[in-house]
Amino acid sequence: MGIVTLTTDFGTADGYAAEVKGALLSRVPGLVLVDGTHEIEPGDVAAAAWVLDRLWDRFPVGTVHLVVVDPGVGGDRAILAARSDDYLFIAPDNGILSLLIGKKELRAIHRIENKSLFAKEVSATFHGRDIMAPVAAQLAAGLPLSEVGPLTPPESCLIWDLPEAQREGDTLAGRVIHIDHFGNIQTSISVADLPTADAGAIDFVRIRNIKIEKFCHNYSQQTLGGLLALIDSGGYLEIAANQGNAADVIGCGPGEEVTVVLKKP
Amino acid sequence: MGIVTLTTDFGTADGYAAEVKGALLSRVPGLVLVDGTHEIEPGDVAAAAWVLDRLWDRFPVGTVHLVVVDPGVGGDRAILAARSDDYLFIAPDNGILSLLIGKKELRAIHRIENKSLFAKEVSATFHGRDIMAPVAAQLAAGLPLSEVGPLTPPESCLIWDLPEAQREGDTLAGRVIHIDHFGNIQTSISVADLPTADAGAIDFVRIRNIKIEKFCHNYSQQTLGGLLALIDSGGYLEIAANQGNAADVIGCGPGEEVTVVLKKP
Amino acid sequence: MGIVTLTTDFGTADGYAAEVKGALLSRVPGLVLVDGTHEIEPGDVAAAAWVLDRLWDRFPVGTVHLVVVDPGVGGDRAILAARSDDYLFIAPDNGILSLLIGKKELRAIHRIENKSLFAKEVSATFHGRDIMAPVAAQLAAGLPLSEVGPLTPPESCLIWDLPEAQREGDTLAGRVIHIDHFGNIQTSISVADLPTADAGAIDFVRIRNIKIEKFCHNYSQQTLGGLLALIDSGGYLEIAANQGNAADVIGCGPGEEVTVVLKKP
Repeated sequence: MGIVTLTTDFGTADGYAAEVKGALLSRVPGLVLVDGTHEIEPGDVAAAAWVLDRLWDRFPVGTVHLVVVDPGVGGDRAILAARSDDYLFIAPDNGILSLLIGKKELRAIHRIENKSLFAKEVSATFHGRDIMAPVAAQLAAGLPLSEVGPLTPPESCLIWDLPEAQREGDTLAGRVIHIDHFGNIQTSISVADLPTADAGAIDFVRIRNIKIEKFCHNYSQQTLGGLLALIDSGGYLEIAANQGNAADVIGCGPGEEVTVVLKKP
Repeated sequence: MGIVTLTTDFGTADGYAAEVKGALLSRVPGLVLVDGTHEIEPGDVAAAAWVLDRLWDRFPVGTVHLVVVDPGVGGDRAILAARSDDYLFIAPDNGILSLLIGKKELRAIHRIENKSLFAKEVSATFHGRDIMAPVAAQLAAGLPLSEVGPLTPPESCLIWDLPEAQREGDTLAGRVIHIDHFGNIQTSISVADLPTADAGAIDFVRIRNIKIEKFCHNYSQQTLGGLLALIDSGGYLEIAANQGNAADVIGCGPGEEVTVVLKKP
Repeated sequence: MGIVTLTTDFGTADGYAAEVKGALLSRVPGLVLVDGTHEIEPGDVAAAAWVLDRLWDRFPVGTVHLVVVDPGVGGDRAILAARSDDYLFIAPDNGILSLLIGKKELRAIHRIENKSLFAKEVSATFHGRDIMAPVAAQLAAGLPLSEVGPLTPPESCLIWDLPEAQREGDTLAGRVIHIDHFGNIQTSISVADLPTADAGAIDFVRIRNIKIEKFCHNYSQQTLGGLLALIDSGGYLEIAANQGNAADVIGCGPGEEVTVVLKKP
């Protein structure tokens, strides 16, 4: 029994996600389907990549992750199927796999070109339903990855520049990646960019001229509503407010610059 | 193992959909439940019918489609269970099945009246949970449709007028049915109303004094942000903007008139 | 095959609920997962308790209800696992179980302290994923409740005051608990507070100086848009408007006072 996760920009009002699920179950009735999210902003492939970055290795080995954020649907962009050591991925070749490629997690990437795996009728505007879902279902049921189409080297895939943290002396420069439902601010600065596995080496964090000097292990170590920084549950530096909405307090969004100043050794 | 889809106007904040799922699983623990959508506007039976129109035949044969948009709950409206060649449907008798009836897809319609199939206690305001869910579960598990109650002719059911396209000379008059999450504008003009199976016979489309002369197979054939028309993945004429929100650009909503002018032969 | 429901304040945009599902399925691949809701307002433990109050006994016997509204995550609040006669519950010790404790439904409450059941790496800010999900999965698969940690008496748990209806002569004073998706107003006055099992003993209901004198069995017994009161499908007094939004009409929200005046005997 295979598991397929779905991460899309479809929203949940139209039934498009359900059409994809119908296509999956029609191919392999016993699949277990799990929603990643359907609330990626329309066409925001970077956001999809970051959601996938948090999700993928939290699932059972063998899970197929299907990501349909596909503004170029029906055009000349390829559709990719890839595998890491333990998982499979299907997404348009538009940058969604950038983080996985950048982190060297993928062992093989194939272009999906084997039309015998597609729906009988393929629409021009819904390849998530007509191409990606049937292929995902069949991979989840054990189809060898090489059957979907030719191997393609990672460097031939569309990869966007990762907002990696830039180190200069005792400062690290990064950016806001995502504001979550709680108003927590996820940055591009990962625990791997820091000298230690926690925030212990940080002197302060600056964002929008606000200096954050309180580093916590969890939210409740700060006073109610106060700003703090911590390493989040995904391994990235996060700016938060204890039981408050840090993004509202600071007035920032994705793309905003974040500077970490390390303690003098 | 049966599949039941749920399409409702419950929203997702209250747990009402979960109560329905609890009722389904309590009757038949092995059911596979798939959300159609729960974001139909409260009481908008027409919108529910159109979502169902896209969904129903995308699922495995035998799937039960449960649609609970039921502003008349507890009053004298009947509850219907129907079958097409390959699928089952449960919905209040308030117009939700209009499209399926109009397209002559239904082979039998029964009124749900067999109280032995209901929950032990039936509330007056939540028949989706107390009547429709237990019946849906039992149908999914193989109960013959005739067990739910008496056969009823389609003409005795509440049917609203379908907004069929009106042909007059070289023009087709239709309406906007739905604005989707991307701002794509779905019209009532189906591919069957056109002389050819694509948009090749169309000279231009007019909506709100805007003339659309670009017909595409997919979005990326138009310049970024430009308006276009195409046949959507459900078989209807759609007005869209490449990577943009056509409904915002045009400023239109459901009900707006759409005119198609065909090429002179 | 066990069932686990998930009720959280995560929202559905970030993939956090999916991470919890991944953790559940990674422990026990065959679990059936059902969303209660993920739209509890951030940190609103009372709202979570009320959603749970409606849901819990609608599911098959043996279902595990996992409720993650956990503003004190990583701090010194305990995490509880409890059982009623037929169901299991996992939630932080922050008041979520108040209604179940108040109604004397729980037969045993344990603190979750057995680290061998947790994820290998436990983050400081996501115990829903790293502690509660693995424990929920294992309980759903048959782990005895006593394995999770020591028994704890109900009186040692954090319980908030239940907004019980106050009777004084022929009046009952209560409060608005929740406004649902339809604008229906759920009050704290339950059918058990009334002299009869329906609204028959009520003279009128007052809320915000509006007197409601129409008592119905269902919405359609009132004229379109008119205000009415009824006993809702969860057993509480509800103020509604037939096919309208009562909360908008009255302009009230949670916490608002509601007075029931009973008929003179």
